[in-house]
Amino acid sequence: MGREEDEAAVHNHQNAIEVRNDNVYDDDDDPNQKNKGNDTVPAAALSVEQIFASQEVPSWQDQLTVRAFVVSFVLSILFTFIVMKLNLTTGIIPSLNVSAGLLGFFFVKTWTKIASKSGLLKQPFTRQENTVIQTCVVASSGIAFSGGFGSYLFGMSESVAKQSSDTNDYKNPSLGWIIGFLFVVSFLGLFSVVPLRKIMIIDFKLTYPSGTATAHLINSFHTPEGAKLAKKQVRTLGKFFSLSFFWGFFQWFYTAADDCGFANFPTLGLKAYENKFYFDFSSTYVGVGMICPYIVNISVLLGGILSWGVMWPLIENRKGDWFDEKLKPSNMHALQGYKVFIAIAIILGDGLYNFVKVLTRTLSGLYNQLQEKDVADSSLPVADRPSYTKEEPSFDDQRRTQLFLKDQISVWFALGGYVAIAAISIGTLPHIFPQLKWYYIVVIYIFAPALAFCNAYGCGLTDWSLASTYGKLAIFTIGAWAGASNGGVLAGLAACGVMMNIVSTASDLTQDFKTGYLTLASPRSMFFSQVIGTAMGCIISPCVFWLFYNAYDNLGKPSSPYPAPFAVVYRNMAILGVEGFGSLPRYCLLLCYIFFGIAIAVNLIKDFIGKDKGKYIPIPMAMAIPFYIGSYFAIDMCIGSLILFIWTKINKAKAEAFAPAVASGLICGDGIWTLPASILALAGIKPPICMKFLSGKDNAKVDGFLSSSS
Amino acid sequence: MGREEDEAAVHNHQNAIEVRNDNVYDDDDDPNQKNKGNDTVPAAALSVEQIFASQEVPSWQDQLTVRAFVVSFVLSILFTFIVMKLNLTTGIIPSLNVSAGLLGFFFVKTWTKIASKSGLLKQPFTRQENTVIQTCVVASSGIAFSGGFGSYLFGMSESVAKQSSDTNDYKNPSLGWIIGFLFVVSFLGLFSVVPLRKIMIIDFKLTYPSGTATAHLINSFHTPEGAKLAKKQVRTLGKFFSLSFFWGFFQWFYTAADDCGFANFPTLGLKAYENKFYFDFSSTYVGVGMICPYIVNISVLLGGILSWGVMWPLIENRKGDWFDEKLKPSNMHALQGYKVFIAIAIILGDGLYNFVKVLTRTLSGLYNQLQEKDVADSSLPVADRPSYTKEEPSFDDQRRTQLFLKDQISVWFALGGYVAIAAISIGTLPHIFPQLKWYYIVVIYIFAPALAFCNAYGCGLTDWSLASTYGKLAIFTIGAWAGASNGGVLAGLAACGVMMNIVSTASDLTQDFKTGYLTLASPRSMFFSQVIGTAMGCIISPCVFWLFYNAYDNLGKPSSPYPAPFAVVYRNMAILGVEGFGSLPRYCLLLCYIFFGIAIAVNLIKDFIGKDKGKYIPIPMAMAIPFYIGSYFAIDMCIGSLILFIWTKINKAKAEAFAPAVASGLICGDGIWTLPASILALAGIKPPICMKFLSGKDNAKVDGFLSSSS
Repeated sequence: MGREEDEAAVHNHQNAIEVRNDNVYDDDDDPNQKNKGNDTVPAAALSVEQIFASQEVPSWQDQLTVRAFVVSFVLSILFTFIVMKLNLTTGIIPSLNVSAGLLGFFFVKTWTKIASKSGLLKQPFTRQENTVIQTCVVASSGIAFSGGFGSYLFGMSESVAKQSSDTNDYKNPSLGWIIGFLFVVSFLGLFSVVPLRKIMIIDFKLTYPSGTATAHLINSFHTPEGAKLAKKQVRTLGKFFSLSFFWGFFQWFYTAADDCGFANFPTLGLKAYENKFYFDFSSTYVGVGMICPYIVNISVLLGGILSWGVMWPLIENRKGDWFDEKLKPSNMHALQGYKVFIAIAIILGDGLYNFVKVLTRTLSGLYNQLQEKDVADSSLPVADRPSYTKEEPSFDDQRRTQLFLKDQISVWFALGGYVAIAAISIGTLPHIFPQLKWYYIVVIYIFAPALAFCNAYGCGLTDWSLASTYGKLAIFTIGAWAGASNGGVLAGLAACGVMMNIVSTASDLTQDFKTGYLTLASPRSMFFSQVIGTAMGCIISPCVFWLFYNAYDNLGKPSSPYPAPFAVVYRNMAILGVEGFGSLPRYCLLLCYIFFGIAIAVNLIKDFIGKDKGKYIPIPMAMAIPFYIGSYFAIDMCIGSLILFIWTKINKAKAEAFAPAVASGLICGDGIWTLPASILALAGIKPPICMKFLSGKDNAKVDGFLSSSS
Repeated sequence: MGREEDEAAVHNHQNAIEVRNDNVYDDDDDPNQKNKGNDTVPAAALSVEQIFASQEVPSWQDQLTVRAFVVSFVLSILFTFIVMKLNLTTGIIPSLNVSAGLLGFFFVKTWTKIASKSGLLKQPFTRQENTVIQTCVVASSGIAFSGGFGSYLFGMSESVAKQSSDTNDYKNPSLGWIIGFLFVVSFLGLFSVVPLRKIMIIDFKLTYPSGTATAHLINSFHTPEGAKLAKKQVRTLGKFFSLSFFWGFFQWFYTAADDCGFANFPTLGLKAYENKFYFDFSSTYVGVGMICPYIVNISVLLGGILSWGVMWPLIENRKGDWFDEKLKPSNMHALQGYKVFIAIAIILGDGLYNFVKVLTRTLSGLYNQLQEKDVADSSLPVADRPSYTKEEPSFDDQRRTQLFLKDQISVWFALGGYVAIAAISIGTLPHIFPQLKWYYIVVIYIFAPALAFCNAYGCGLTDWSLASTYGKLAIFTIGAWAGASNGGVLAGLAACGVMMNIVSTASDLTQDFKTGYLTLASPRSMFFSQVIGTAMGCIISPCVFWLFYNAYDNLGKPSSPYPAPFAVVYRNMAILGVEGFGSLPRYCLLLCYIFFGIAIAVNLIKDFIGKDKGKYIPIPMAMAIPFYIGSYFAIDMCIGSLILFIWTKINKAKAEAFAPAVASGLICGDGIWTLPASILALAGIKPPICMKFLSGKDNAKVDGFLSSSS
């Protein structure tokens, strides 16, 4: 479930997680990894399915237990909070699969333990059930991302519209229409890839790194050795969860106003603080930094230094020349314009490059796949070839294939579902967004299945979901088609939502099918779990967003703790698509072209010099994020990296086994603290103290004022 | 070198350190501890002096190397800063013997390593040399305490005088007279006990717990096993030293004004902060808390809760009834009076009790000793009997006694020295303090040797130096003799200084003789080292104090980071002695009597119920400290205790071996940071930022003011 907003981060990170898992959990069941040579497991060891051979696989109905969905519901709320917080702060969302897996295991294990003690246990806890939970939680919290609360959907709101331009074309969020919108667009993706699952999983044997990693995790939990490690990891996670939660709680007391508290601590001095260089004591981003690979963190920091350290001060000096000096700093025609549009240029450049690259690999992979189907003994180069091999299938593969094919989902059911939902959607959406004409939607729905397939296939190869690139495509095409006079901005943003939801859920579901395949969970139970998870997400995510939206009235403003950077970026992309480049400040377009080119060039160099050296080249997408919001979170993330680095130096095995748990704990604890925090904010309970940072001069003035006024 | 200001803390703590050392270092050479039965060392193991038998003992001149005094000088400065900082903040001074030993070992070891590599090493590093360093540093940093910079000497100053009463009887500190004063009073103690050293060490075999512990430490460092542990401990100390130093450095940036920074962090809320309950992030006191025994920390916290949590708010409510409500809160006739005089009552009650107790034990011990000398086969009860036994002396004892008696110091030299210095002193002191008539000094010098002997003997038995109790005695007697009209306050304080310096150095030197006895260091080298150390201290301490005095212009004010609580307490004791109880606010005297009684009663109960249960009874002296300055440092110390407690639970052996090193590192790092901090303050460089804590209401006002003024 790589997401493109954070595609650099998620993509690499998920590989990283997988690489880490290699060392902690035995994985001897993925043909792609057989020849890695860094495996210390003896070759004669039992294969995974031989270990599990004695366990009966429950029927697909029995895999869908009530307790699984209760646990999923609780975890969905937890992860929705986390994802929503990340959406609204920086838009960098690391993979939470490991924590979802761990916590799911922990909850059901506790449940079954209590139930078995009280004699009420009817069914033991199986790995299939664990997969069902995992799938449901991922589907549900996925909506928090693909629902666009930090991007297109919030980009429609009045407050973002006011920042970005002079247009009055806005639609404020409201619980009703958001839930309706999500319900009519989120299920299409599910139906679009169901018929193709056999091709993807059995015939093409696509890797799906995240799905595979999750499956290994779940498999390992259900072996005695793995259960012990998992228990320790859960304990570590719990410890850091509480730590992070109480740290959030403690911080809260000192944030009586926006610029108060630890989040505004000028750790590197006031001058650096003004340029957004400071450590903001956010345990979330320290955790994110521990999960993301080093290069992502360094890229983000470099991006921050380049933009806030060099470029913005230089451009600021041109005030009055390049742009009107009387404009407020937050005006899009002033410095803010450079920040937003240069970031957009980099994101588009990087996105375009990777779109072309993944599409090329998809098409060539497909071509080879089809060729191989005909010619049994292919002699194609191995490098770019998917892992489809004609060797005698192993015991594991046989058993998995057998179970995967047992429970079928009819093609007609899938097709019928798609058409029915599409029809409802076409009928409903124009009522929600009058600017989005019904024929735009028809066009999207005709092309969508092909794009969904492409995305699912590409994701299987590279673990890289291009959902938001497809979304941007929709913004530009539909926006331009509608035109400025017909509310093209809103039409574009809405179209982006429709497109993103389809392609994003399509790749997520295929990932889950892979996980199910490797844990012997039935495709039917996977599908149901996804449907239920998506339905949960369509309710939970809007409610969580609604909580944030009402609790913090400065949501989306650059100075707020929740700047929702991508909302502004998406809206400005839509404006760019509809109105063209006319309104940009001086030289901004030139700089955009330059950075667009640099983004592509850096990617080219990265791929050209090979993986070994290429990993030292920063990732343009990651560099672009601090351009708009500043580098404070980059410093958090680098501190996370540093902790991990030192830990690995001291004790590699321990760091590899427990760093993901520590990071998950930090992220989850702080994330879940946002729930009570926003409830307190809603209830109008203000923190009692403001921890304020004043320069020596200001402080003297304030002291004088306070002593005279009291 | 127990000091009475902090006698509770120091006394117990030094025992604690010793108990800890029992487990870490083998101690099989102290006859008092032979029958403890908790020793896991096999009885057949070599005795300490057998291990060292192959090493030649250098002559006493060779024990006094230049490098030893260079290292001593550096360490003296370090420890003087630390002691001065402690003097001026709370007056609680833990034993720094362990860190002095560790750091001395580290410095000379590094020195000899470098010298031996470069081929310049003329003399190997012996334990005798190590003892010389230790002695010199203790003597020198001892002046920082007995010089009274936090008590009688600073109590003479104008700023303290203004706080405590309406008298104009003050003498401001000045580098010249302080150095002169210290030089003429500090050496007398040395000469007064030199003739008695053989009786104390060889004949009476007094324990001197601190001196013995230090000797064990030094002995252990010079065995291969001990050197390895010492190396690890030094590394730990170094790590926490840097951590604490940089933490101090980091904090500095946020303290643009007095009420800014971490030291004023309302960790428990603003209401608690107003009543001085908060964690002030001082690594020094966290370290002190780790060294002091749990009961001291808990006593301090209980004292804080009793006074600031209960009594002061209640007395505050009587404003207008018990005292004039128009008076400033810092006026001695208002609430401040209760704070100071109740604390004095407890300190005097506890001091008196222990004075009587130690004196009783001293006299009965002496009596028994003399009895035993006559009657070889005594059948006295063992309980209170000093450790003088008539068994066949062990190999260790024989060798130690032989070397201890080899280098004699002539009695005539000691006597001559005493009379000569006393004469100079009598001639000089009235010029410094005109109020201190020459005949007062003569009287003091006649009684001093006897008191010095008492103190040295009592300290040998109980590790408890009563120096400041003798000082208080001088305040009251000489103050009353001089009378109010003749500047009795100043005369009393000056007499206190004269007395304290003699009795304090006497007990210190005897401790050192014990250390020297156990490490085969010559009494002559000990004496010289003490003389040089004292001379260093007479220069270093006033200079360090001078730095503080000039760097912080609010030194001694209750709201300052350096409130120097005992300066006010001493001055008020002098006023009490001279003027009587007349000026106390209403019911204050009654409360003082009650608390004086309680202090004695608690001590009685403590001794009555026995050591096992008595250790759970809080110590009145420790409880009195927060009465005046608040409980923030109590919270630091309890956090230190908590860390130690958890650490001991997790890994007892490691905690015991390394907790003193961690604590020393924390104390030293923060202490030495005060050097650059006060230089910065002297140079007029203000920290750039004020971290301020405002209530939500104030913050709104300030925000309004700032936006309107800029």
